[in-house]
Amino acid sequence: MTIPLMNQLGVVKRNIVRADAAAVAQLGRLGSATVHEAMGRVGLLKPYMRPIWPGASAAGSAVTVLLQPGDNWMMHVAAEQIQSGDIVVAAVTSECSDGYFGDLLATSFKARGARGLVIDAGVRDVRVLQEMGFPVWSRAISAKGTIKATLGSVNVPVICAGALVNPGDAVIADDDGVVVVPAADVARVAALAQKREDLEGEKRAKLAAGVLGLDMYDMRGALEKAGLRYID
Amino acid sequence: MTIPLMNQLGVVKRNIVRADAAAVAQLGRLGSATVHEAMGRVGLLKPYMRPIWPGASAAGSAVTVLLQPGDNWMMHVAAEQIQSGDIVVAAVTSECSDGYFGDLLATSFKARGARGLVIDAGVRDVRVLQEMGFPVWSRAISAKGTIKATLGSVNVPVICAGALVNPGDAVIADDDGVVVVPAADVARVAALAQKREDLEGEKRAKLAAGVLGLDMYDMRGALEKAGLRYID
Amino acid sequence: MTIPLMNQLGVVKRNIVRADAAAVAQLGRLGSATVHEAMGRVGLLKPYMRPIWPGASAAGSAVTVLLQPGDNWMMHVAAEQIQSGDIVVAAVTSECSDGYFGDLLATSFKARGARGLVIDAGVRDVRVLQEMGFPVWSRAISAKGTIKATLGSVNVPVICAGALVNPGDAVIADDDGVVVVPAADVARVAALAQKREDLEGEKRAKLAAGVLGLDMYDMRGALEKAGLRYID
Amino acid sequence: MTIPLMNQLGVVKRNIVRADAAAVAQLGRLGSATVHEAMGRVGLLKPYMRPIWPGASAAGSAVTVLLQPGDNWMMHVAAEQIQSGDIVVAAVTSECSDGYFGDLLATSFKARGARGLVIDAGVRDVRVLQEMGFPVWSRAISAKGTIKATLGSVNVPVICAGALVNPGDAVIADDDGVVVVPAADVARVAALAQKREDLEGEKRAKLAAGVLGLDMYDMRGALEKAGLRYID
Amino acid sequence: MTIPLMNQLGVVKRNIVRADAAAVAQLGRLGSATVHEAMGRVGLLKPYMRPIWPGASAAGSAVTVLLQPGDNWMMHVAAEQIQSGDIVVAAVTSECSDGYFGDLLATSFKARGARGLVIDAGVRDVRVLQEMGFPVWSRAISAKGTIKATLGSVNVPVICAGALVNPGDAVIADDDGVVVVPAADVARVAALAQKREDLEGEKRAKLAAGVLGLDMYDMRGALEKAGLRYID
Amino acid sequence: MTIPLMNQLGVVKRNIVRADAAAVAQLGRLGSATVHEAMGRVGLLKPYMRPIWPGASAAGSAVTVLLQPGDNWMMHVAAEQIQSGDIVVAAVTSECSDGYFGDLLATSFKARGARGLVIDAGVRDVRVLQEMGFPVWSRAISAKGTIKATLGSVNVPVICAGALVNPGDAVIADDDGVVVVPAADVARVAALAQKREDLEGEKRAKLAAGVLGLDMYDMRGALEKAGLRYID
Repeated sequence: MTIPLMNQLGVVKRNIVRADAAAVAQLGRLGSATVHEAMGRVGLLKPYMRPIWPGASAAGSAVTVLLQPGDNWMMHVAAEQIQSGDIVVAAVTSECSDGYFGDLLATSFKARGARGLVIDAGVRDVRVLQEMGFPVWSRAISAKGTIKATLGSVNVPVICAGALVNPGDAVIADDDGVVVVPAADVARVAALAQKREDLEGEKRAKLAAGVLGLDMYDMRGALEKAGLRYID
Repeated sequence: MTIPLMNQLGVVKRNIVRADAAAVAQLGRLGSATVHEAMGRVGLLKPYMRPIWPGASAAGSAVTVLLQPGDNWMMHVAAEQIQSGDIVVAAVTSECSDGYFGDLLATSFKARGARGLVIDAGVRDVRVLQEMGFPVWSRAISAKGTIKATLGSVNVPVICAGALVNPGDAVIADDDGVVVVPAADVARVAALAQKREDLEGEKRAKLAAGVLGLDMYDMRGALEKAGLRYID
Repeated sequence: MTIPLMNQLGVVKRNIVRADAAAVAQLGRLGSATVHEAMGRVGLLKPYMRPIWPGASAAGSAVTVLLQPGDNWMMHVAAEQIQSGDIVVAAVTSECSDGYFGDLLATSFKARGARGLVIDAGVRDVRVLQEMGFPVWSRAISAKGTIKATLGSVNVPVICAGALVNPGDAVIADDDGVVVVPAADVARVAALAQKREDLEGEKRAKLAAGVLGLDMYDMRGALEKAGLRYID
Repeated sequence: MTIPLMNQLGVVKRNIVRADAAAVAQLGRLGSATVHEAMGRVGLLKPYMRPIWPGASAAGSAVTVLLQPGDNWMMHVAAEQIQSGDIVVAAVTSECSDGYFGDLLATSFKARGARGLVIDAGVRDVRVLQEMGFPVWSRAISAKGTIKATLGSVNVPVICAGALVNPGDAVIADDDGVVVVPAADVARVAALAQKREDLEGEKRAKLAAGVLGLDMYDMRGALEKAGLRYID
Repeated sequence: MTIPLMNQLGVVKRNIVRADAAAVAQLGRLGSATVHEAMGRVGLLKPYMRPIWPGASAAGSAVTVLLQPGDNWMMHVAAEQIQSGDIVVAAVTSECSDGYFGDLLATSFKARGARGLVIDAGVRDVRVLQEMGFPVWSRAISAKGTIKATLGSVNVPVICAGALVNPGDAVIADDDGVVVVPAADVARVAALAQKREDLEGEKRAKLAAGVLGLDMYDMRGALEKAGLRYID
Repeated sequence: MTIPLMNQLGVVKRNIVRADAAAVAQLGRLGSATVHEAMGRVGLLKPYMRPIWPGASAAGSAVTVLLQPGDNWMMHVAAEQIQSGDIVVAAVTSECSDGYFGDLLATSFKARGARGLVIDAGVRDVRVLQEMGFPVWSRAISAKGTIKATLGSVNVPVICAGALVNPGDAVIADDDGVVVVPAADVARVAALAQKREDLEGEKRAKLAAGVLGLDMYDMRGALEKAGLRYID
């Protein structure tokens, strides 16, 4: 259960094992909240990561990038590693809100087949990105550009917004946030998430009819045992 | 003017005195900014409380909930206390951005007659909530779910985002934020707010015609007395 | 290169030299990100300054205002100094998120010819402002009103969200943020920005065709020299 | 359980009922963490409230002040209401970090018998305050002074750093933070807190001897029942 | 280079491979800044992690804990896994500043041989902890206690304040922050760090004598090539 | 009153006009809070700038540095421009908390005659800096080192923590924060500050004797006129 040294700088890993595409697609349909529950409430990026427009959603397997502050050189290196169906997940070695990514890089990423970008930093040209239909989840929007001077890495494990992301992991991103599912677990998690989803329809109907969760989930006994008192 | 012990845990108050519905509706039409002015600039929740979609607005009387960090058990207890026209106002005993509320609870709250939720924490399923037309004001959006293990309370006075909310108080929420009006004061505040609103039409017309606030409000003398100097 | 005493209080400068209108318009078409690059990556306000609705954009020359915390008196003084094509840029002497500006002031500013407001504080009546088409970039939205008791200044140099703004400077604001260009530099910056923009079309076409930035910008040699290693 | 309108502006209440001095002293000896536990984990101000020097501690009954942003006029009004053994608790109507309080006010407060200040804003002259032995808990330290222009109130209920404080309540402040105990509850809470403290000595001795909390609190069964697995 | 599923809940790993004690001690003498440089500027926890008193320092191998928000149950489970020379590293599944740790747990941890605690949450009883000489690095100080209701894990890989920590990793903590060195790398990193340190004495002497870094590091040519201009 | 283009990159100005040393020394004795008042409450850096140890104080004239994120190259360039009695004031082109400065640079700065550093970023080796008696005011403490790749500037006007600092300006820094006084104004401000200080002794004596500010400043009439009501 020990994890090897992370954050090696100056390395690009070319061959990565991507999560199963069908399972990733299924996870994407189920959405980040349901997937996060099915994962046992782990794998969520911190909630400051927000889509740059409402309604954005994407699911794919991760190409990871480790960036230096104020330096987007490795984004160009990452572009070459993108395959159709990938989502680029970018971390920075220290906190930075500069605009690492704009319409030119988005054009390139899209041409390579990328489905979106998750970046623990800033992006710009957000109106054009929305017109292009290229979704981004970021911590900031900033017109400030970056330099190209220092090496980072591509396709090493990264910590992005508090979550560990390995290259090839499934990334599920929508209005509720971004969840990462280890590549080896996508089928299992998709099955669990689907089961949750299937049960929700029935629950929703009951609740819509006015049944209380107190009764539907049979909570009254536990609440009473915990000492809940009703007063008038 | 002394206030009794708050935050009693493990208590549900069933009978609360709700603010007058007609006055609440009037306050809702006038909007949070006008109501806040009429209140003498008190009763506003901190501005980090934002609607989860633009254009959301709601007015109702408060059903209050005190939650534990990462635990939404009391939201189910609160559902039973909702009457038509209520807004649920939820506080947490320490800062937390987890997603306490999603589409299932929203279905239940809506079925009970709730007009919206104000929560000093996170929510999820925001796209579905928008489709349902169920408005929420929150400090965060997060896919992270919660457990059901520890008691809080329902319909006790709570401090939500820096404002005291008593059960039954009027809650006015829109794009500008969330204002709380004590139930006993709604008629008085509505009258004051209406008076402000009535005066604004005339002012707006003058300003639109190019009249300066300096003249309309007769400020030049006071500015000069305070020492304002014009230079070229 | 020394700058004179700023933040003089109680002063209104009437005659200011505004940036050339044609160059300002050109800068506005090019957008904040391109202008910021052309400036050499300076002049950007901090990225917490956000438009109050998506898609807002404005370009004009600055009428500056220095405000006191919780006091919007000088906004009325500023209104008189507005000419057609101006953008009001408001700073506060200490951090404050109160709602200094709403629909009445917007009506007045618009009647005077203002194209927008950039304020390192809060605003309110945001739905009406959007309906009026009056764009604002702010650090917060807040229903909390302000008083009129203490002098600030109008058309003095101010520091707004970390950037120095002189009266008359060009202000370019859109979804990506707010950039300030000194009035004396607008023509030079517009030419540089236009050159960048002209070059982008060709680049975009290449990238869209799948050419990599690595090749288009001829980066492979520099990356290898910096020690980048590819592994399988 | 309903609470009357708070934050009335322009009011000074002269006669307040102070918490029992002996119980307050006992609570002070027990410390904020123990008192907070005895209260049932309520009544704690947010943890951003920090003493301006390490080791500061104070216990007293609250004289409350409601201040306007950037305006410390009411601190002078409050001084007159201070009696020996009081702690002044100051809230602001919107967030502000200005330096409301320095060595002159501290000299006055101390002369009136105050034991300290809790303020949800900034203070200054901190080195002199430490030399004077006048403890302060604040959200910020700032050299920025304030004006005297707008009324607030004295001895009304206030919300200070997220906690409701009534005039006369017991305030216990030390390195761990600030806890408020309703005046009517001090004897009961002091007894509960003393009981906790009395039990801690025995526990401390066992733990120091290497006994595990797992055994001392008899947790192993509950952990196993919850599903805890040990692996090698 | 792929990392297995993290954050498994409800698991305690008993046998972990600890970093070599001699190398850990050497890293501790060299300090977090030098070690971080020797690591290639990786492995640093975010700078909001601060010692609870100035001058605190500790070096040891990590016993990791994954906690739930507002729940310190697993701290007691962790205590049993502590061996002499360990530092406990605690992460929480979502952001929380509650006081998870106080003098009783510190007594227990110390009796088991722990050298300190690194926790991405709050602690309390800080004055007693300082008197005990038990150092803690935390994101907050808070008197708020926690419950014991939900399982986390012990000795699984955790992400603490943005850094991945495996059980057994070396943890170097002092006034400058907290650095993590993978257990397998401690000897190599210690050698690199020692080499840096050995070189610094000579550099320090030159700089103290007035030699400029510009000359000592031979920077003038590179600066000129980059375009640096000197003006009078 | 217009200010020329700031933030020119790649420039070092060698000859700057330093504030009068005697006046700077006098300002230092009076302290940041008194100086800030005498300035008319302008010139204060934001209160997040804190000394790295309690009790630090320094006064000198500014050598300014504009840095790039994660890059401290220009600190070495700045060292050569330091004269005895200077304080280095460093700004970064975007927000960064990396550790730009440690014991080696401090040794060099001290050897050149610097009295301290004010930096809107992070520093490290804080224990050694304290032992050396080299005071620093910073936004963060971080062990993370920086690279030397991109030009900034030395002795250009900079905006540091929200305040404009020209090279040669007086910088007064202590426990209460950092204030900047334009070089041309030091004598005038020192005289005003001294006058304030001279008056404070008498006030302090009165207040210590129990005289109220209400009476000493003759506030009762104004408070009554503003509508203050006393109730029992």
